[in-house]
Amino acid sequence: MQDPRINSKEPLENKESRWIGLYKLEYSDPKGNKRFWEIAERKTRGSSELDAVGIVSLLKSKNNESTQIILCLQFRPSINKMSVEFPAGLVDREETPEKAALRELEEETGYHGKIVSSYYTMYSNVGMTNTNNKLIFVEVDLDDEINKNPQQKLEEDEFITIVIVPIKNLFSTLQEYEKKGYGIDSNLGSFALGLHMSASLLQ
Amino acid sequence: MQDPRINSKEPLENKESRWIGLYKLEYSDPKGNKRFWEIAERKTRGSSELDAVGIVSLLKSKNNESTQIILCLQFRPSINKMSVEFPAGLVDREETPEKAALRELEEETGYHGKIVSSYYTMYSNVGMTNTNNKLIFVEVDLDDEINKNPQQKLEEDEFITIVIVPIKNLFSTLQEYEKKGYGIDSNLGSFALGLHMSASLLQ
Repeated sequence: MQDPRINSKEPLENKESRWIGLYKLEYSDPKGNKRFWEIAERKTRGSSELDAVGIVSLLKSKNNESTQIILCLQFRPSINKMSVEFPAGLVDREETPEKAALRELEEETGYHGKIVSSYYTMYSNVGMTNTNNKLIFVEVDLDDEINKNPQQKLEEDEFITIVIVPIKNLFSTLQEYEKKGYGIDSNLGSFALGLHMSASLLQ
Repeated sequence: MQDPRINSKEPLENKESRWIGLYKLEYSDPKGNKRFWEIAERKTRGSSELDAVGIVSLLKSKNNESTQIILCLQFRPSINKMSVEFPAGLVDREETPEKAALRELEEETGYHGKIVSSYYTMYSNVGMTNTNNKLIFVEVDLDDEINKNPQQKLEEDEFITIVIVPIKNLFSTLQEYEKKGYGIDSNLGSFALGLHMSASLLQ
């Protein structure tokens, strides 16, 4: 194994791209004026109207005092460095968000979980794209036999390292990863900031 | 005023775009294999290595029991609907993130604030772009004369409505906006989920 790296970067014309489309929108603003906006879109969105799911895994065991969570580390060409993220993935065509969450959790981490809850659809970066995702909360019973010896089921071109941390240490863990040069995913980072600030903000 | 709407959507070639660039990367994976990745990038990034800031505004007053927060509502062509977001904006060239946060807060809401804290840089949508942002926490003293009669300073093509809610109601407020058809920004939505789940997750 070696450090991944970017070898070259070339402009790509829209008509030649496979995964990302570039579009120009003309819209009417609230005063009725015609204006233009540029956006990038995934070319892979299925019928679910949802691009991706992120998995907030809640690892519980009789032996652990506090709930733990799984983080994924991987090289991301877009930022030319390692990132720290929730387990996550694109929703396949005809797949529900919940089914996608359990499938991706199993593929990326080896753990089997049960759906706890999911909430609103969220849009990342609405100034630039229409890309969206949901955070799905999944409980993983570490005392269940099926979770005793988890094995990742990665594709040949996937290289994901998982780390497990107590949720109460999530925010400080992310600060440490930033010092080590990792890029922090914004869903994960914002969620951790909400947890961290809750004591001072909620009265 | 009328409801904004999309009139047309046309494919855009990379060489003709002004704001978003499309690129093809060749990279070496951890096994040394050469692979390709497509990304979209802002063409506007300055020297700060940071595209944007989001502002977590903490509105405090002697008369209020709980801290309030400002949310921005605006039509987003990328998703063809209204969004609910933190006040936010691009960081100008040669501008610090903190200066950008105070400037954007004043422009979008009329309120003057003081920097409380900021944390890690976060990457939105690392599978698709290199776009990044920071959440900056800003305190606004509602009892200060300068904040008695806030006036937005929007550009001619900006239409932003602000709403002020107690932070303890943030999560339920977002759920209501989704029911009304708004798109929820993922930084805001993830932060609110962290706040909401803190009681059950942190022991």
